[in-house]
Amino acid sequence: MTTLTPAALLTQLRWRYAVKTFDSGRKIPAETWKALEETLVLSPSSYGLQPWQFLVVEDAAVRAKLRPASWGQSQVTDASHYVVFASKVRIEEADLDRFVARTAEVRGVPAEALAPLRKMMLGDLVLGPRSKVIADWAARQTYIALGNFMTAAAAVGIDTCPMEGIDPPKYDEILGLAGSGHQTVVACAAGFRSAADKYAAAPKVRYAIEDVVRRV
Amino acid sequence: MTTLTPAALLTQLRWRYAVKTFDSGRKIPAETWKALEETLVLSPSSYGLQPWQFLVVEDAAVRAKLRPASWGQSQVTDASHYVVFASKVRIEEADLDRFVARTAEVRGVPAEALAPLRKMMLGDLVLGPRSKVIADWAARQTYIALGNFMTAAAAVGIDTCPMEGIDPPKYDEILGLAGSGHQTVVACAAGFRSAADKYAAAPKVRYAIEDVVRRV
Repeated sequence: MTTLTPAALLTQLRWRYAVKTFDSGRKIPAETWKALEETLVLSPSSYGLQPWQFLVVEDAAVRAKLRPASWGQSQVTDASHYVVFASKVRIEEADLDRFVARTAEVRGVPAEALAPLRKMMLGDLVLGPRSKVIADWAARQTYIALGNFMTAAAAVGIDTCPMEGIDPPKYDEILGLAGSGHQTVVACAAGFRSAADKYAAAPKVRYAIEDVVRRV
Repeated sequence: MTTLTPAALLTQLRWRYAVKTFDSGRKIPAETWKALEETLVLSPSSYGLQPWQFLVVEDAAVRAKLRPASWGQSQVTDASHYVVFASKVRIEEADLDRFVARTAEVRGVPAEALAPLRKMMLGDLVLGPRSKVIADWAARQTYIALGNFMTAAAAVGIDTCPMEGIDPPKYDEILGLAGSGHQTVVACAAGFRSAADKYAAAPKVRYAIEDVVRRV
Protein backbone atom coordinates (compact mmCIF):
# COMPACT_ATOMS: atom_id res chain seq x y z
CA MET A 1 0.00 0.00 0.00
CA THR A 2 1.36 3.39 -0.95
CA THR A 3 -1.21 5.68 0.65
CA LEU A 4 -1.99 6.59 4.23
CA THR A 5 -5.48 6.36 5.62
CA PRO A 6 -6.93 9.79 6.50
CA ALA A 7 -6.69 8.86 10.19
CA ALA A 8 -3.03 7.87 9.86
CA LEU A 9 -2.24 11.11 8.06
CA LEU A 10 -3.78 13.10 10.89
CA THR A 11 -1.85 11.06 13.45
CA GLN A 12 1.39 12.05 11.71
CA LEU A 13 0.46 15.73 11.33
CA ARG A 14 -0.51 15.91 15.00
CA TRP A 15 2.75 14.19 15.91
CA ARG A 16 4.67 16.86 13.98
CA TYR A 17 5.75 20.00 15.81
CA ALA A 18 8.51 22.55 15.42
CA VAL A 19 11.30 20.71 17.22
CA LYS A 20 13.26 22.94 19.55
CA THR A 21 15.85 20.38 20.66
CA PHE A 22 17.05 17.66 18.33
CA ASP A 23 18.81 14.48 19.41
CA SER A 24 22.24 15.33 18.04
CA GLY A 25 23.29 11.70 18.22
CA ARG A 26 20.69 10.35 15.78
CA LYS A 27 21.12 10.54 12.02
CA ILE A 28 18.33 10.06 9.50
CA PRO A 29 19.00 6.73 7.72
CA ALA A 30 20.62 7.30 4.31
CA GLU A 31 17.77 5.74 2.35
CA THR A 32 15.18 7.91 4.11
CA TRP A 33 17.22 11.05 3.56
CA LYS A 34 17.64 10.20 -0.11
CA ALA A 35 13.84 10.02 -0.39
CA LEU A 36 13.42 13.34 1.40
CA GLU A 37 15.84 15.00 -1.01
CA GLU A 38 13.75 13.53 -3.80
CA THR A 39 10.61 15.07 -2.26
CA LEU A 40 12.34 18.45 -2.50
CA VAL A 41 12.96 17.84 -6.20
CA LEU A 42 9.33 16.77 -6.65
CA SER A 43 7.89 19.91 -5.00
CA PRO A 44 5.12 21.55 -7.03
CA SER A 45 5.68 25.05 -8.39
CA SER A 46 3.92 27.45 -10.71
CA TYR A 47 4.45 26.33 -14.35
CA GLY A 48 6.66 23.64 -12.79
CA LEU A 49 9.46 26.20 -13.12
CA GLN A 50 11.25 25.22 -9.89
CA PRO A 51 12.67 28.68 -9.13
CA TRP A 52 14.80 27.36 -6.28
CA GLN A 53 17.83 25.61 -4.97
CA PHE A 54 18.10 23.48 -1.85
CA LEU A 55 21.37 23.60 0.04
CA VAL A 56 21.98 20.58 2.24
CA VAL A 57 24.54 21.80 4.73
CA GLU A 58 26.68 18.84 5.72
CA ASP A 59 29.86 20.66 6.73
CA ALA A 60 29.83 21.06 10.53
CA ALA A 61 32.01 24.16 10.28
CA VAL A 62 29.49 25.85 7.98
CA ARG A 63 26.65 24.87 10.30
CA ALA A 64 28.58 26.41 13.18
CA LYS A 65 28.88 29.64 11.19
CA LEU A 66 25.16 29.66 10.35
CA ARG A 67 24.11 29.26 13.98
CA PRO A 68 24.94 32.82 15.11
CA ALA A 69 23.08 34.03 12.01
CA SER A 70 20.06 32.10 13.36
CA TRP A 71 19.66 33.68 16.80
CA GLY A 72 21.96 30.96 18.12
CA GLN A 73 19.25 28.33 17.76
CA SER A 74 20.57 24.83 18.43
CA GLN A 75 18.65 23.18 15.60
CA VAL A 76 21.18 24.55 13.10
CA THR A 77 24.02 22.48 14.49
CA ASP A 78 22.21 19.65 16.29
CA ALA A 79 19.71 18.33 13.77
CA SER A 80 20.68 15.37 11.62
CA HIS A 81 20.22 17.42 8.45
CA TYR A 82 19.92 21.11 7.70
CA VAL A 83 18.44 22.45 4.47
CA VAL A 84 18.60 26.06 3.32
CA PHE A 85 15.82 26.98 0.89
CA ALA A 86 17.05 29.54 -1.66
CA SER A 87 14.95 31.05 -4.41
CA LYS A 88 15.64 32.85 -7.67
CA VAL A 89 16.22 36.58 -7.47
CA ARG A 90 15.03 37.13 -11.05
CA ILE A 91 13.48 35.10 -13.84
CA GLU A 92 15.15 35.77 -17.17
CA GLU A 93 14.70 34.50 -20.70
CA ALA A 94 17.58 32.10 -20.13
CA ASP A 95 15.60 30.48 -17.30
CA LEU A 96 12.68 29.92 -19.64
CA ASP A 97 14.97 28.47 -22.30
CA ARG A 98 16.47 26.09 -19.78
CA PHE A 99 13.03 25.00 -18.61
CA VAL A 100 11.74 24.55 -22.15
CA ALA A 101 14.82 22.51 -23.06
CA ARG A 102 14.35 20.31 -20.00
CA THR A 103 10.65 19.82 -20.75
CA ALA A 104 11.42 18.93 -24.36
CA GLU A 105 14.04 16.44 -23.16
CA VAL A 106 11.88 14.76 -20.50
CA ARG A 107 8.73 14.62 -22.60
CA GLY A 108 10.39 13.87 -25.92
CA VAL A 109 8.76 16.79 -27.73
CA PRO A 110 10.42 19.42 -29.94
CA ALA A 111 11.18 22.70 -28.13
CA GLU A 112 9.22 24.55 -30.84
CA ALA A 113 6.05 22.82 -29.67
CA LEU A 114 6.53 24.57 -26.32
CA ALA A 115 6.68 28.06 -27.83
CA PRO A 116 3.16 28.99 -26.61
CA LEU A 117 4.08 27.99 -23.04
CA ARG A 118 7.32 29.98 -23.26
CA LYS A 119 5.43 32.98 -24.55
CA MET A 120 2.94 32.79 -21.70
CA MET A 121 5.70 32.58 -19.08
CA LEU A 122 7.57 35.42 -20.77
CA GLY A 123 4.51 37.67 -20.68
CA ASP A 124 3.79 36.78 -17.08
CA LEU A 125 7.13 36.40 -15.29
CA VAL A 126 9.71 38.27 -17.37
CA LEU A 127 7.81 41.17 -18.92
CA GLY A 128 4.45 41.29 -17.12
CA PRO A 129 3.42 42.84 -13.79
CA ARG A 130 4.70 39.77 -11.94
CA SER A 131 8.25 40.58 -13.08
CA LYS A 132 8.18 43.53 -10.66
CA VAL A 133 7.60 41.24 -7.70
CA ILE A 134 9.40 38.22 -9.07
CA ALA A 135 11.65 37.64 -6.05
CA ASP A 136 8.54 37.51 -3.85
CA TRP A 137 6.86 35.20 -6.32
CA ALA A 138 9.87 32.87 -6.30
CA ALA A 139 10.01 32.99 -2.49
CA ARG A 140 6.36 31.96 -2.28
CA GLN A 141 7.03 29.02 -4.57
CA THR A 142 9.85 28.04 -2.28
CA TYR A 143 7.46 28.04 0.68
CA ILE A 144 5.42 25.42 -1.18
CA ALA A 145 8.58 23.32 -1.17
CA LEU A 146 8.98 23.99 2.56
CA GLY A 147 5.40 22.92 3.29
CA ASN A 148 5.80 19.86 1.10
CA PHE A 149 9.06 18.94 2.83
CA MET A 150 7.71 19.18 6.39
CA THR A 151 4.60 17.17 5.57
CA ALA A 152 6.56 14.56 3.61
CA ALA A 153 8.96 14.21 6.53
CA ALA A 154 6.08 13.81 8.99
CA ALA A 155 4.54 11.18 6.72
CA VAL A 156 7.69 9.04 7.03
CA GLY A 157 8.16 9.77 10.75
CA ILE A 158 10.98 12.33 10.50
CA ASP A 159 10.98 15.45 12.66
CA THR A 160 11.57 18.94 11.33
CA CYS A 161 11.79 22.52 12.46
CA PRO A 162 11.18 25.37 10.01
CA MET A 163 13.67 28.18 10.57
CA GLU A 164 12.46 31.67 9.77
CA GLY A 165 14.43 33.33 12.53
CA ILE A 166 17.51 33.56 10.36
CA ASP A 167 19.45 36.40 8.77
CA PRO A 168 19.11 35.72 5.02
CA PRO A 169 21.81 38.14 3.79
CA LYS A 170 24.24 36.64 6.33
CA TYR A 171 23.30 33.15 5.14
CA ASP A 172 23.92 34.24 1.55
CA GLU A 173 27.36 35.45 2.54
CA ILE A 174 28.29 32.29 4.44
CA LEU A 175 26.93 30.00 1.72
CA GLY A 176 28.45 31.98 -1.14
CA LEU A 177 25.06 32.71 -2.65
CA ALA A 178 25.65 36.42 -3.20
CA GLY A 179 25.68 37.04 -6.95
CA SER A 180 24.59 33.46 -7.71
CA GLY A 181 21.08 34.37 -8.79
CA HIS A 182 19.58 32.62 -5.75
CA GLN A 183 18.99 34.01 -2.27
CA THR A 184 18.20 32.45 1.07
CA VAL A 185 14.55 32.66 2.04
CA VAL A 186 14.09 30.11 4.83
CA ALA A 187 15.67 26.98 6.26
CA CYS A 188 14.51 23.70 7.77
CA ALA A 189 16.20 21.35 10.21
CA ALA A 190 15.37 17.64 10.03
CA GLY A 191 16.14 14.69 12.28
CA PHE A 192 14.84 13.26 15.53
CA ARG A 193 13.42 15.12 18.51
CA SER A 194 15.35 14.90 21.76
CA ALA A 195 13.63 13.06 24.61
CA ALA A 196 14.40 16.20 26.64
CA ASP A 197 12.43 18.57 24.36
CA LYS A 198 9.54 19.65 26.56
CA TYR A 199 7.75 21.18 23.57
CA ALA A 200 7.15 17.69 22.18
CA ALA A 201 4.49 17.11 24.83
CA ALA A 202 2.93 20.59 24.70
CA PRO A 203 -0.57 20.55 23.20
CA LYS A 204 -0.59 21.91 19.65
CA VAL A 205 -2.11 25.39 19.48
CA ARG A 206 -4.54 25.82 16.61
CA TYR A 207 -7.64 27.93 16.26
CA ALA A 208 -10.90 26.01 16.15
CA ILE A 209 -11.70 24.72 12.67
CA GLU A 210 -14.78 27.00 12.45
CA ASP A 211 -12.52 30.02 12.94
CA VAL A 212 -10.14 29.03 10.14
CA VAL A 213 -12.20 27.09 7.60
CA ARG A 214 -15.11 29.03 6.14
CA ARG A 215 -17.78 27.41 4.02
CA VAL A 216 -18.99 29.52 1.12
CA MET B 1 0.93 1.73 10.96
CA THR B 2 0.66 5.49 10.68
CA THR B 3 3.71 6.27 8.56
CA LEU B 4 4.54 5.70 4.91
CA THR B 5 7.74 4.01 3.85
CA PRO B 6 10.09 6.37 1.97
CA ALA B 7 9.40 4.41 -1.21
CA ALA B 8 5.62 4.70 -0.77
CA LEU B 9 5.92 8.44 -0.16
CA LEU B 10 7.81 8.84 -3.42
CA THR B 11 5.25 6.75 -5.26
CA GLN B 12 2.54 9.16 -4.11
CA LEU B 13 4.51 12.31 -4.90
CA ARG B 14 5.32 10.98 -8.38
CA TRP B 15 1.65 10.08 -8.84
CA ARG B 16 0.69 13.68 -7.97
CA TYR B 17 0.49 16.23 -10.79
CA ALA B 18 -1.38 19.46 -11.42
CA VAL B 19 -4.67 18.03 -12.64
CA LYS B 20 -6.01 19.84 -15.68
CA THR B 21 -9.29 17.94 -16.02
CA PHE B 22 -11.12 16.62 -12.97
CA ASP B 23 -13.77 13.92 -13.05
CA SER B 24 -16.74 16.14 -12.21
CA GLY B 25 -18.81 13.11 -11.24
CA ARG B 26 -16.59 11.96 -8.37
CA LYS B 27 -16.76 13.49 -4.90
CA ILE B 28 -14.11 13.05 -2.23
CA PRO B 29 -15.63 10.84 0.50
CA ALA B 30 -16.84 12.93 3.46
CA GLU B 31 -14.46 11.35 5.95
CA THR B 32 -11.45 11.95 3.72
CA TRP B 33 -12.44 15.56 3.11
CA LYS B 34 -12.91 16.11 6.84
CA ALA B 35 -9.34 14.92 7.35
CA LEU B 36 -8.05 17.20 4.60
CA GLU B 37 -9.75 20.19 6.20
CA GLU B 38 -8.05 19.17 9.42
CA THR B 39 -4.68 19.12 7.63
CA LEU B 40 -5.33 22.75 6.67
CA VAL B 41 -5.91 23.59 10.32
CA LEU B 42 -2.73 21.72 11.29
CA SER B 43 -0.52 23.58 8.77
CA PRO B 44 2.69 24.90 10.30
CA SER B 45 3.27 28.67 10.40
CA SER B 46 5.77 31.06 11.90
CA TYR B 47 5.11 31.38 15.67
CA GLY B 48 2.13 29.11 14.97
CA LEU B 49 0.25 32.34 14.28
CA GLN B 50 -1.93 30.92 11.47
CA PRO B 51 -2.33 34.20 9.55
CA TRP B 52 -4.87 32.70 7.19
CA GLN B 53 -8.36 31.60 6.38
CA PHE B 54 -9.39 28.74 4.12
CA LEU B 55 -12.58 29.19 2.13
CA VAL B 56 -14.15 25.94 1.01
CA VAL B 57 -16.36 26.98 -1.87
CA GLU B 58 -19.33 24.62 -1.95
CA ASP B 59 -21.87 26.85 -3.66
CA ALA B 60 -21.93 25.96 -7.37
CA ALA B 61 -23.07 29.48 -8.26
CA VAL B 62 -20.06 31.00 -6.51
CA ARG B 63 -17.76 28.53 -8.24
CA ALA B 64 -19.29 29.54 -11.55
CA LYS B 65 -18.52 33.16 -10.74
CA LEU B 66 -14.93 32.38 -9.78
CA ARG B 67 -14.23 30.54 -13.02
CA PRO B 68 -14.03 33.60 -15.30
CA ALA B 69 -11.73 35.15 -12.66
CA SER B 70 -9.49 32.09 -13.15
CA TRP B 71 -8.82 32.28 -16.90
CA GLY B 72 -11.87 30.09 -17.36
CA GLN B 73 -10.06 27.04 -16.04
CA SER B 74 -12.36 24.05 -15.61
CA GLN B 75 -10.88 22.93 -12.29
CA VAL B 76 -12.76 25.73 -10.51
CA THR B 77 -16.15 24.25 -11.27
CA ASP B 78 -15.36 20.59 -11.97
CA ALA B 79 -13.22 19.49 -9.03
CA SER B 80 -14.91 17.80 -6.09
CA HIS B 81 -13.71 20.56 -3.73
CA TYR B 82 -12.30 24.03 -4.21
CA VAL B 83 -10.33 25.86 -1.53
CA VAL B 84 -9.36 29.53 -1.63
CA PHE B 85 -6.33 30.34 0.50
CA ALA B 86 -6.61 33.82 2.01
CA SER B 87 -4.02 35.48 4.21
CA LYS B 88 -4.00 38.34 6.68
CA VAL B 89 -3.46 41.80 5.23
CA ARG B 90 -1.98 43.14 8.48
CA ILE B 91 -0.97 41.75 11.87
CA GLU B 92 -2.18 43.94 14.70
CA GLU B 93 -1.97 43.82 18.48
CA ALA B 94 -5.45 42.31 18.58
CA ASP B 95 -4.17 39.36 16.53
CA LEU B 96 -1.42 38.75 19.07
CA ASP B 97 -3.90 38.98 21.94
CA ARG B 98 -6.16 36.49 20.26
CA PHE B 99 -3.26 34.11 19.69
CA VAL B 100 -1.98 34.48 23.23
CA ALA B 101 -5.47 33.84 24.61
CA ARG B 102 -5.82 30.73 22.47
CA THR B 103 -2.39 29.45 23.52
CA ALA B 104 -3.20 30.05 27.18
CA GLU B 105 -6.49 28.20 26.73
CA VAL B 106 -5.05 25.18 24.88
CA ARG B 107 -1.98 24.82 27.07
CA GLY B 108 -3.62 25.74 30.36
CA VAL B 109 -1.11 28.47 31.20
CA PRO B 110 -1.82 32.05 32.34
CA ALA B 111 -1.69 34.61 29.52
CA GLU B 112 0.88 36.58 31.55
CA ALA B 113 3.33 33.71 31.19
CA LEU B 114 3.21 34.33 27.43
CA ALA B 115 4.17 38.00 27.72
CA PRO B 116 7.74 37.42 26.43
CA LEU B 117 6.40 35.62 23.34
CA ARG B 118 3.89 38.41 22.74
CA LYS B 119 6.64 41.00 23.08
CA MET B 120 8.81 39.15 20.57
CA MET B 121 6.00 38.92 18.03
CA LEU B 122 5.12 42.57 18.60
CA GLY B 123 8.70 43.68 17.93
CA ASP B 124 8.94 41.47 14.86
CA LEU B 125 5.55 41.54 13.12
CA VAL B 126 3.74 44.64 14.35
CA LEU B 127 6.48 47.20 14.95
CA GLY B 128 9.65 45.74 13.38
CA PRO B 129 10.90 45.75 9.79
CA ARG B 130 8.69 42.75 9.00
CA SER B 131 5.59 44.89 9.62
CA LYS B 132 6.42 46.73 6.38
CA VAL B 133 6.14 43.53 4.36
CA ILE B 134 3.60 41.79 6.55
CA ALA B 135 1.13 40.95 3.78
CA ASP B 136 3.96 39.21 1.90
CA TRP B 137 5.01 37.45 5.07
CA ALA B 138 1.45 36.23 5.66
CA ALA B 139 1.16 35.14 2.03
CA ARG B 140 4.34 33.08 2.34
CA GLN B 141 2.96 31.37 5.43
CA THR B 142 -0.15 30.56 3.44
CA TYR B 143 1.99 28.91 0.77
CA ILE B 144 3.26 26.55 3.49
CA ALA B 145 -0.38 25.59 4.00
CA LEU B 146 -0.74 25.09 0.24
CA GLY B 147 2.33 22.84 0.10
CA ASN B 148 1.15 20.92 3.14
CA PHE B 149 -2.32 20.47 1.64
CA MET B 150 -1.14 19.16 -1.73
CA THR B 151 1.29 16.71 -0.14
CA ALA B 152 -1.24 15.57 2.45
CA ALA B 153 -3.78 15.00 -0.32
CA ALA B 154 -1.28 12.99 -2.35
CA ALA B 155 -0.47 10.91 0.74
CA VAL B 156 -4.11 9.81 0.98
CA GLY B 157 -4.54 9.42 -2.78
CA ILE B 158 -6.47 12.60 -3.54
CA ASP B 159 -5.68 14.70 -6.60
CA THR B 160 -5.14 18.45 -6.51
CA CYS B 161 -4.36 21.36 -8.77
CA PRO B 162 -2.82 24.54 -7.35
CA MET B 163 -4.41 27.60 -8.93
CA GLU B 164 -2.17 30.65 -9.24
CA GLY B 165 -3.71 31.82 -12.48
CA ILE B 166 -6.48 33.64 -10.68
CA ASP B 167 -7.42 37.30 -10.20
CA PRO B 168 -7.11 37.80 -6.42
CA PRO B 169 -8.92 41.18 -6.20
CA LYS B 170 -11.80 39.72 -8.23
CA TYR B 171 -11.86 36.68 -5.92
CA ASP B 172 -11.96 39.03 -2.91
CA GLU B 173 -14.93 40.79 -4.41
CA ILE B 174 -16.84 37.60 -5.22
CA LEU B 175 -16.09 36.04 -1.84
CA GLY B 176 -16.82 39.20 0.13
CA LEU B 177 -13.27 39.36 1.49
CA ALA B 178 -12.73 43.06 0.77
CA GLY B 179 -12.37 44.84 4.11
CA SER B 180 -12.36 41.54 6.05
CA GLY B 181 -8.67 41.68 6.96
CA HIS B 182 -7.93 38.67 4.73
CA GLN B 183 -7.13 38.62 1.02
CA THR B 184 -7.00 35.88 -1.58
CA VAL B 185 -3.49 34.67 -2.39
CA VAL B 186 -3.94 31.35 -4.16
CA ALA B 187 -6.45 28.52 -4.56
CA CYS B 188 -6.38 24.74 -4.86
CA ALA B 189 -8.81 22.34 -6.47
CA ALA B 190 -9.09 18.81 -5.06
CA GLY B 191 -10.80 15.67 -6.26
CA PHE B 192 -10.15 12.93 -8.77
CA ARG B 193 -8.41 13.20 -12.13
CA SER B 194 -10.46 12.50 -15.22
CA ALA B 195 -9.51 9.42 -17.22
CA ALA B 196 -9.41 11.78 -20.20
CA ASP B 197 -6.74 14.10 -18.72
CA LYS B 198 -3.78 13.51 -21.00
CA TYR B 199 -1.46 15.33 -18.59
CA ALA B 200 -1.84 12.47 -16.12
CA ALA B 201 0.40 10.31 -18.29
CA ALA B 202 2.91 13.01 -19.24
CA PRO B 203 6.32 12.46 -17.62
CA LYS B 204 6.92 14.83 -14.72
CA VAL B 205 9.39 17.57 -15.62
CA ARG B 206 11.98 18.19 -12.92
CA TYR B 207 15.57 19.28 -13.13
CA ALA B 208 18.13 16.65 -12.24
CA ILE B 209 18.70 16.39 -8.51
CA GLU B 210 22.30 17.61 -8.87
CA ASP B 211 21.01 20.82 -10.44
CA VAL B 212 18.59 21.55 -7.60
CA VAL B 213 20.13 20.04 -4.47
CA ARG B 214 23.55 21.40 -3.57
CA ARG B 215 25.71 19.86 -0.90
CA VAL B 216 27.66 22.33 1.21
